[in-house]
Amino acid sequence: MNGEAWKRLRKTADSISDMSIRGAGKIARAAANALADLARDWDGQSPEDLLADISKAASILHETRPSAVSLRNGILLTLRDVEKQDSIDGMKELLMMRSDEFISSSHLALEKISQFGAKRIRKGSTVLTHCNSSAALSVIYQAFKDGRVDEVYSTESRPWRQGHITARWLAEREVPVTMIVDSAVRHFMNDMDIVCVGADTITANGAVINKIGTSQLALAAHEARTPFIVCAETYKFSMETLMGSLVEIEDRGPKEVADPLEPDDFPGVRFKNPVFDVTPPEYINSIVTEMGVISPYMATEIIRGMFQITGPISMERGNEDHKWFREM
Amino acid sequence: MNGEAWKRLRKTADSISDMSIRGAGKIARAAANALADLARDWDGQSPEDLLADISKAASILHETRPSAVSLRNGILLTLRDVEKQDSIDGMKELLMMRSDEFISSSHLALEKISQFGAKRIRKGSTVLTHCNSSAALSVIYQAFKDGRVDEVYSTESRPWRQGHITARWLAEREVPVTMIVDSAVRHFMNDMDIVCVGADTITANGAVINKIGTSQLALAAHEARTPFIVCAETYKFSMETLMGSLVEIEDRGPKEVADPLEPDDFPGVRFKNPVFDVTPPEYINSIVTEMGVISPYMATEIIRGMFQITGPISMERGNEDHKWFREM
Amino acid sequence: MNGEAWKRLRKTADSISDMSIRGAGKIARAAANALADLARDWDGQSPEDLLADISKAASILHETRPSAVSLRNGILLTLRDVEKQDSIDGMKELLMMRSDEFISSSHLALEKISQFGAKRIRKGSTVLTHCNSSAALSVIYQAFKDGRVDEVYSTESRPWRQGHITARWLAEREVPVTMIVDSAVRHFMNDMDIVCVGADTITANGAVINKIGTSQLALAAHEARTPFIVCAETYKFSMETLMGSLVEIEDRGPKEVADPLEPDDFPGVRFKNPVFDVTPPEYINSIVTEMGVISPYMATEIIRGMFQITGPISMERGNEDHKWFREM
Amino acid sequence: MNGEAWKRLRKTADSISDMSIRGAGKIARAAANALADLARDWDGQSPEDLLADISKAASILHETRPSAVSLRNGILLTLRDVEKQDSIDGMKELLMMRSDEFISSSHLALEKISQFGAKRIRKGSTVLTHCNSSAALSVIYQAFKDGRVDEVYSTESRPWRQGHITARWLAEREVPVTMIVDSAVRHFMNDMDIVCVGADTITANGAVINKIGTSQLALAAHEARTPFIVCAETYKFSMETLMGSLVEIEDRGPKEVADPLEPDDFPGVRFKNPVFDVTPPEYINSIVTEMGVISPYMATEIIRGMFQITGPISMERGNEDHKWFREM
Amino acid sequence: MNGEAWKRLRKTADSISDMSIRGAGKIARAAANALADLARDWDGQSPEDLLADISKAASILHETRPSAVSLRNGILLTLRDVEKQDSIDGMKELLMMRSDEFISSSHLALEKISQFGAKRIRKGSTVLTHCNSSAALSVIYQAFKDGRVDEVYSTESRPWRQGHITARWLAEREVPVTMIVDSAVRHFMNDMDIVCVGADTITANGAVINKIGTSQLALAAHEARTPFIVCAETYKFSMETLMGSLVEIEDRGPKEVADPLEPDDFPGVRFKNPVFDVTPPEYINSIVTEMGVISPYMATEIIRGMFQITGPISMERGNEDHKWFREM
Amino acid sequence: MNGEAWKRLRKTADSISDMSIRGAGKIARAAANALADLARDWDGQSPEDLLADISKAASILHETRPSAVSLRNGILLTLRDVEKQDSIDGMKELLMMRSDEFISSSHLALEKISQFGAKRIRKGSTVLTHCNSSAALSVIYQAFKDGRVDEVYSTESRPWRQGHITARWLAEREVPVTMIVDSAVRHFMNDMDIVCVGADTITANGAVINKIGTSQLALAAHEARTPFIVCAETYKFSMETLMGSLVEIEDRGPKEVADPLEPDDFPGVRFKNPVFDVTPPEYINSIVTEMGVISPYMATEIIRGMFQITGPISMERGNEDHKWFREM
Repeated sequence: MNGEAWKRLRKTADSISDMSIRGAGKIARAAANALADLARDWDGQSPEDLLADISKAASILHETRPSAVSLRNGILLTLRDVEKQDSIDGMKELLMMRSDEFISSSHLALEKISQFGAKRIRKGSTVLTHCNSSAALSVIYQAFKDGRVDEVYSTESRPWRQGHITARWLAEREVPVTMIVDSAVRHFMNDMDIVCVGADTITANGAVINKIGTSQLALAAHEARTPFIVCAETYKFSMETLMGSLVEIEDRGPKEVADPLEPDDFPGVRFKNPVFDVTPPEYINSIVTEMGVISPYMATEIIRGMFQITGPISMERGNEDHKWFREM
Repeated sequence: MNGEAWKRLRKTADSISDMSIRGAGKIARAAANALADLARDWDGQSPEDLLADISKAASILHETRPSAVSLRNGILLTLRDVEKQDSIDGMKELLMMRSDEFISSSHLALEKISQFGAKRIRKGSTVLTHCNSSAALSVIYQAFKDGRVDEVYSTESRPWRQGHITARWLAEREVPVTMIVDSAVRHFMNDMDIVCVGADTITANGAVINKIGTSQLALAAHEARTPFIVCAETYKFSMETLMGSLVEIEDRGPKEVADPLEPDDFPGVRFKNPVFDVTPPEYINSIVTEMGVISPYMATEIIRGMFQITGPISMERGNEDHKWFREM
Repeated sequence: MNGEAWKRLRKTADSISDMSIRGAGKIARAAANALADLARDWDGQSPEDLLADISKAASILHETRPSAVSLRNGILLTLRDVEKQDSIDGMKELLMMRSDEFISSSHLALEKISQFGAKRIRKGSTVLTHCNSSAALSVIYQAFKDGRVDEVYSTESRPWRQGHITARWLAEREVPVTMIVDSAVRHFMNDMDIVCVGADTITANGAVINKIGTSQLALAAHEARTPFIVCAETYKFSMETLMGSLVEIEDRGPKEVADPLEPDDFPGVRFKNPVFDVTPPEYINSIVTEMGVISPYMATEIIRGMFQITGPISMERGNEDHKWFREM
Repeated sequence: MNGEAWKRLRKTADSISDMSIRGAGKIARAAANALADLARDWDGQSPEDLLADISKAASILHETRPSAVSLRNGILLTLRDVEKQDSIDGMKELLMMRSDEFISSSHLALEKISQFGAKRIRKGSTVLTHCNSSAALSVIYQAFKDGRVDEVYSTESRPWRQGHITARWLAEREVPVTMIVDSAVRHFMNDMDIVCVGADTITANGAVINKIGTSQLALAAHEARTPFIVCAETYKFSMETLMGSLVEIEDRGPKEVADPLEPDDFPGVRFKNPVFDVTPPEYINSIVTEMGVISPYMATEIIRGMFQITGPISMERGNEDHKWFREM
Repeated sequence: MNGEAWKRLRKTADSISDMSIRGAGKIARAAANALADLARDWDGQSPEDLLADISKAASILHETRPSAVSLRNGILLTLRDVEKQDSIDGMKELLMMRSDEFISSSHLALEKISQFGAKRIRKGSTVLTHCNSSAALSVIYQAFKDGRVDEVYSTESRPWRQGHITARWLAEREVPVTMIVDSAVRHFMNDMDIVCVGADTITANGAVINKIGTSQLALAAHEARTPFIVCAETYKFSMETLMGSLVEIEDRGPKEVADPLEPDDFPGVRFKNPVFDVTPPEYINSIVTEMGVISPYMATEIIRGMFQITGPISMERGNEDHKWFREM
Repeated sequence: MNGEAWKRLRKTADSISDMSIRGAGKIARAAANALADLARDWDGQSPEDLLADISKAASILHETRPSAVSLRNGILLTLRDVEKQDSIDGMKELLMMRSDEFISSSHLALEKISQFGAKRIRKGSTVLTHCNSSAALSVIYQAFKDGRVDEVYSTESRPWRQGHITARWLAEREVPVTMIVDSAVRHFMNDMDIVCVGADTITANGAVINKIGTSQLALAAHEARTPFIVCAETYKFSMETLMGSLVEIEDRGPKEVADPLEPDDFPGVRFKNPVFDVTPPEYINSIVTEMGVISPYMATEIIRGMFQITGPISMERGNEDHKWFREM
């Protein structure tokens, strides 16, 4: 039996669960790899058994972070059409090929995004960013290397202050960077030439779910006619939302908000600490993906492109995607 | 001859004309059924004759309510590709199959919409609706059964007061419901969590034609950042508008507006009584269809999906659709 | 004793209570007259007694419609500075003079408003009005006589349908008039050249409280860049709101909204029937008063003008106004 | 000589300088008191000498916090018309009276504001506040005691986190309070019924200068049609801005923004730390002052009221105010 | 008789008529001077005769440019309270004093405006202006001298191209200036820090009537959150509009619009050539007057200040102003 | 060798360069024709040589106007799939067929657009247009012939005044036409029923690049709720922008802006003269193309339709398009 392969897969799942593997791209690639690894070593007897085991593995991986859209998409893209193969070998080969494809295209995506997005920034620009998005930073840094960026403003991004990481990362690369508190965004907006952020999830109607505060940047940018662009690999787009699902927004509890030096010193005070907020598409000029720079309203087409669905939108798609996770 | 089949078809046409068959879904399904019924009994000699008769039948049915987009779509979907068959039998079979498909998918659509749409309503919501849309009510009622709806506000919906039907329908199902006059919409908007309405027609650029007053709800919802969703089967989307046609809005005359107790007591007063108004896409967050929950700007793609057009938008499509109705 | 005068005053109070005297101007003038009538016949001994009786009378009148700003203002303007007189005769004379002043200036105001407001309507205009405001109609009719109005649109104004009165009043004067339902306002807004309505109360920060639906007209007019003007005598301005009071909006119960032919046929349905709504000043181009055509943001100055307060806004004013009503 | 009085005045000035006396009201009252104290003990020979000394004292006090509008106004109100007196005694008496007047009216103002403002909050409201304003908190707490407030949301208010003080103050008084980070404001705005903040300075055209982030609350409130009110004593209104001056916004340097645990760990990163931002009047529904609840556009009239200027706006006023500070 | 004085007055009137005296300030001062000149030499017998002659003279001057608000205000301010004098000498003296006052205060106003307005421009600003306003240019030039202006953009200002005069005037003073066509305003708006224009007339509700195109600058500035300020002496404010009058906008015919080289080469083409347009107050941040920098909504108070009307707004004022012109 | 064919191709290139062939459609068709002409006469030995020569020819033509999107699209459409043919004859045939297809479809497109667009104009409309667009004029003129247009307003369109050409063209066809200066657009907007313009380039996210001033028309139309439509053949849509490219906007120098009679009379004045500006999609109701009347947000789909790309958006497309131009 392939007990070892299962053991490795469960270890990968654990690493995703306990955040030792983290970041939207990394967890998706780890899952794709784990599935290929399992398929490679699988030594069962019938295609039906293989499909059952794949489905089980997919469900184990998916459950580690059930609301992470990149993880879900990584698994679905790895398993696409595998069930249509007749033979065990055909299935294994296709699955391993899909896994490779996903992993390499995921690496390519960031490069494409940095190339496409950098062109959107005019020479001499001051750019505002929020939190710490590798896609947004790759665009900004590419534009800086192309001689287009004069200065970057980074918000602090409470409660985690990922803006500190962003500011240090840019400063190390000698990009002039200024840090401001989150509530100073509107105050400085008229001095910005463009706002450039990342995304956690993008919905079928073009809304962007990202780090709390993103929608305030977008609102202030819209008020001041400052372009607002979002940088995101296509695996951030959520097919689930096409079926009506709302993206649940996690509340991470009081610790991060309360003063770290005196965490218990707020008797009677309640804390709310949502991780993300929702930026509506009307405040977003463009989304920069590896498939091109598009209007947020094209989100549905990006989802179709990601799954290489040739035909028109149809009713069946949604259920099909769920099949891999039904077993659990 | 199949005189009986023609007689039945004309009877169906008459029932649509005189409103004994009414409602967007019902008239479309009746027409699809009538075409299949005619094809089944058709006993002519050549494929050409069959096509000519089908075209004649299509035109008779279409003329009963020439501006009803669902009727037109029901006929076109039933006749899709029939002309590409070589034999009489092939044509008859395809037409009957298409008719069945349309009828059953039309029944399924409402169920899908209620499932998708209900997910858009957050737990504890107060929902505002307008007029009496079965798609909107199916969404609201499903959400109520899922424990998400606390209360529904229904406008009166003058001049016909279909809000009365809506309020009674909800009250019978024990959904807490409050009725308000149409002009109180903005007054209560800040207490609403979401607005949920139906549609008569949806245009290629994403505008929604619906019961007079809908656009005021949408405007007031937009002013107050209250989500506004439209629930509509895909056969409400109009390909004609893609070819530039504006949707004509019927004026139903003074009787409904004047006091029913004293209809003639307005010497010198003119009445205008438009049935519908136009809600622009920028005030619509999502349209809930059986193909998914989409941005209104994806309307063109929904039209393509409805007709299962695989390729890109092209110039030819419009004329092709007209062919069935050229004869009349 | 002047028992007869008290009897007459109470009769006036009853007529205001039971709505046999109604209309903002009429009730205010009736109260002013009743106070003068009481003063004229008063035969007590000391100025203190007179003030006590006046205060009692003021309170009786005020209690008939405690939220009617015109009634309150009519009483306050009649009693202004009366307490500063030394003698009974001085008090009586001043009170009677103030009463006359208020009544005649109230009559003059409507004439001034029609003159000022008519000039705001350009030649060839189509005017939209709502409900049945004598100030708005006097402006529209004056403009019609001046050859500036081509046509008037009147909303139905549910639930009371005062639009019927408006339409008939205009038609009798041969003003071309068209009636529409309340929910058709946005549909027709692009065909309107100006919107002209009345007011029930105007607050210190320039908001207009008027017949339910007014704020929807204002919102739709703002969306379409159609000028929106409010016509109102200065006694509609509320000093109470300067002291922070919100204007309470009466709910008139289900009867007017439910079908008058079948009022009990709504088991389980709740009705909400607010009489007024609040139009924010940013949607109002001008308020036409007898003191001039002003920005709504000048409301505080109009209040000062009404009471002829020469100095700057001060802290004391509010309490002073309350003194007459403390007794009750 | 009155060396002792001068010593005391300089001590007061030092206390204001080194922030041992702080808060808009406290510094203004301390200055008013110091001037009266000096006048009481003054033992010079001529009215001219007295005026020169007063002017010197005024300038000393003013220089401690030259951009603090409350300090400036407190001094100006204390010295109003003193130069018009003929005799030394007349001058001393008027100055001491004005000082007393200012101090007591300043104490009264907060009580008035809490009474007026509390009425603006409807029963059952959830209120959002920012930073730690005594005027805003007095309004919210009064409304809570009146049974109108269900819950208060307090922003953290980086960089100083005065929201911690606010939250504790409310929690101690058993007002249900929830703390959120500054960037979560838009996320929660649809759940708020009103936003209530204080002000540092109010300009002649109605803009409010307040703690950094205030303008983002106002923008998000405006987007969601949530009322936004500002609570401020009249001595926060700046006559200087009527003469064209822009309010300079202090930048408090990097220390407060950088991580307090590792302040030096940001090589190459610049910090910008503005204390205040500017909220434009179009996002403000009302300003609650002790002179009434007004539109922000009435700011000029409040300035006139504060100085009891009876006549119209004129050219001379500005220079007059400057006279006391010319000496330095 | 004082035939010579009449002759001089008529000559002044003619010079205003034929535009040899032009510019809002110049024509107003010329009229004020002409009235004083007439009074000085007047040798009639009775105060009544003097008043009749003054009224006649006022009417002659007013008729030269009946829609020029500065001319009307100059005359009214010169004649203020003259009719209240008992004696001929008293009348003459007051009139001559008023004339002097108006002329000198009009000269002072521009200086004040340049001082106040220059402070509104932040260091390092790029300023956009339109047409050729001496008030706006005095502000911009003062700010340039204060080291606050980096560059000025001037629109061409078709049809008269007064932008050419503006650009040359600035270039002569070594202010860096760039000229753009009128339709490029929105294209460059995001590069502007402030927009600064003049005014022809300001209405009682705060709208600004100025050179055609001004309202497009204001709209584009508002869209981009760029401050928009208007510079205007108080004699540009129109009391007539307080009485409801709309400002008539002159159409100057086809010649200026058609190609000057081929004026007759447009058979069948109609031209419309309005001189001014109307900028609504919601797009104006401040109006810079010699009485201070105010919100446009304070226009009514400026009108009162100009005429030194101490009391509140009242009904009588309008008619009073008309008295001088009734005779003609 | 086919030296003659090369000579003809270079001559075509020269004519495009020197503007003797101009207009978006004409240059694209000329290039398509030149490529077919070259292929027809080509007498080389290997398919590889043919591809190399085609690529060289494509590059020569492309370089004549490298930023002209129609030229680029005409070449790409003519060369589509040519490289996939195995034989020289296959390549030549396909290329010539594609060339014919492009030329005839380009002629058809205008006719389609006029038919589709004319339906968008309601009976009795006043239409505003800008500059001189053949697509927009064909729509307006068709609508006029259909009895839908009462009057057309044409802007002057500085600096080139193409509005003169537009006005004469319409007047010759007896369409009532009125000319206005560019800065009068907002002044007249409330009298317009629809705005109808052309496009130079349309980007992947739906922005329209067109003659300077277009975006001001769109902004003013949006402010007044006046529909704004853009008429454009699909070859105006730019695939390059999908890859992130910003459309560079040419500055044509001072001559056109300075007075033609005194071009050198502006010492020290700088001129900026951008040819185009960018209208964001949120101000555009519909784009009328030969493939239908669509939302601007469907731009990506139009690009795919133009190249008949069946599958979803993908990463490869962009590079593929570049291949023909790599050689130069």
